[in-house]
Amino acid sequence: MAAPYAIGFDADDTLWHNENIFERVHERYRALLAHHHDAATVDRTLLATEQRNLELYGYGVKGFMLSSIETAIELTQGKISAEEIRQLIALGREMLAHPVELLDGAAETLAALAPAHRLLLITKGDLRDQERKLTRSGLAARFAHVEIVSEKDPDVYAAILRRHAIAPERFLMVGNSLKSDILPVLALGGAGAHVPYHLMWAHDQVEMPAVAPARFFKLKTLRELPDLVTTLGAEK
Amino acid sequence: MAAPYAIGFDADDTLWHNENIFERVHERYRALLAHHHDAATVDRTLLATEQRNLELYGYGVKGFMLSSIETAIELTQGKISAEEIRQLIALGREMLAHPVELLDGAAETLAALAPAHRLLLITKGDLRDQERKLTRSGLAARFAHVEIVSEKDPDVYAAILRRHAIAPERFLMVGNSLKSDILPVLALGGAGAHVPYHLMWAHDQVEMPAVAPARFFKLKTLRELPDLVTTLGAEK
Repeated sequence: MAAPYAIGFDADDTLWHNENIFERVHERYRALLAHHHDAATVDRTLLATEQRNLELYGYGVKGFMLSSIETAIELTQGKISAEEIRQLIALGREMLAHPVELLDGAAETLAALAPAHRLLLITKGDLRDQERKLTRSGLAARFAHVEIVSEKDPDVYAAILRRHAIAPERFLMVGNSLKSDILPVLALGGAGAHVPYHLMWAHDQVEMPAVAPARFFKLKTLRELPDLVTTLGAEK
Repeated sequence: MAAPYAIGFDADDTLWHNENIFERVHERYRALLAHHHDAATVDRTLLATEQRNLELYGYGVKGFMLSSIETAIELTQGKISAEEIRQLIALGREMLAHPVELLDGAAETLAALAPAHRLLLITKGDLRDQERKLTRSGLAARFAHVEIVSEKDPDVYAAILRRHAIAPERFLMVGNSLKSDILPVLALGGAGAHVPYHLMWAHDQVEMPAVAPARFFKLKTLRELPDLVTTLGAEK
């Protein structure tokens, strides 16, 4: 029998819905600013603010809340009322308190893989928020290790693999973001299973290289993962 | 020779100044709201908001920023201007971009202990902010492990010690907060070295039990730490 594969999972939009909650908040945000600017301008300015603030705030809902307030003040040239800012804070709080909705197949796939493989959760965002979502998801017991990180680049993945004594060629990362979940792991010599979500934050959008690297796999749903893991294990 | 002690260090107000930066921000916050309320009311209301929001936001500057905006809207009954809220955001951004000022003796003490002991950094706050401060501090290379956590209670310390295979009776935690750094570790059977900072966030203030537990030590400065570690090591 082949040595067990270590499998890393992204969380937001891989195991549970996230971007759909942001999308609903964006809709209400556009509505709030509709008498000042059209939706495209609001979206573009908010994204620019978020990207400018990423270095200082990091990923997550709290940084989004602060950027949304800053953008609203800018787009209204200071005319936004305190009551409207209170509504923006309330919108963010709703996101933080939102129930966790698992993606189709997430629970079953983890249950199938956990007995024979070491599963890692590797996610970025606000520490408290990610911990709360993991707890609420009911999936925590499936993971041998939980890594909440401030960035997902090759250095960060390399440090995680080193810490847990996982050889990159025995590591498969599963996620919805080519940029954060797949490309950095392929660069280290690991494998990547891309499971797209139907929505994606504009900041995370990258193109796949025209020639897909070896050890890159695209899945329609997490339900296809156990078969892929079996195939990868049989390769060795 | 005794087995090496593993030594955990808190970061904010233990290795580098933090509360003095918050204190200067509080002064400017009180000034901003001075035409609405006296300083004591402002402080009390802000602390109540922060404590109410801790569960949702966790520790750190971004949560503080959001709570300070919420409090200002409440205390002005919605009369605060967007320009003033912009100033509040700017205040928070200054905190996040603030240079790291090491406490007296921090660098020398870590340099003295690192060769013979396993040093851990155990801190709470925003992930990105704590990582940036550690990088800027120049102290990162002294630590075998860095743990940024959302809460510091006995369960969290127990998980850290388990993860790194450290027996509690061979662990000493060093920090300025009895509540976060010392009492939870004493409860596990570890040792605690309390090095008070001259300022303390009201939320973190607890009284020491009248009868100090065994393995509790109070130091005036980090410079006294190497001698304490020698004494503890000799005990075994």
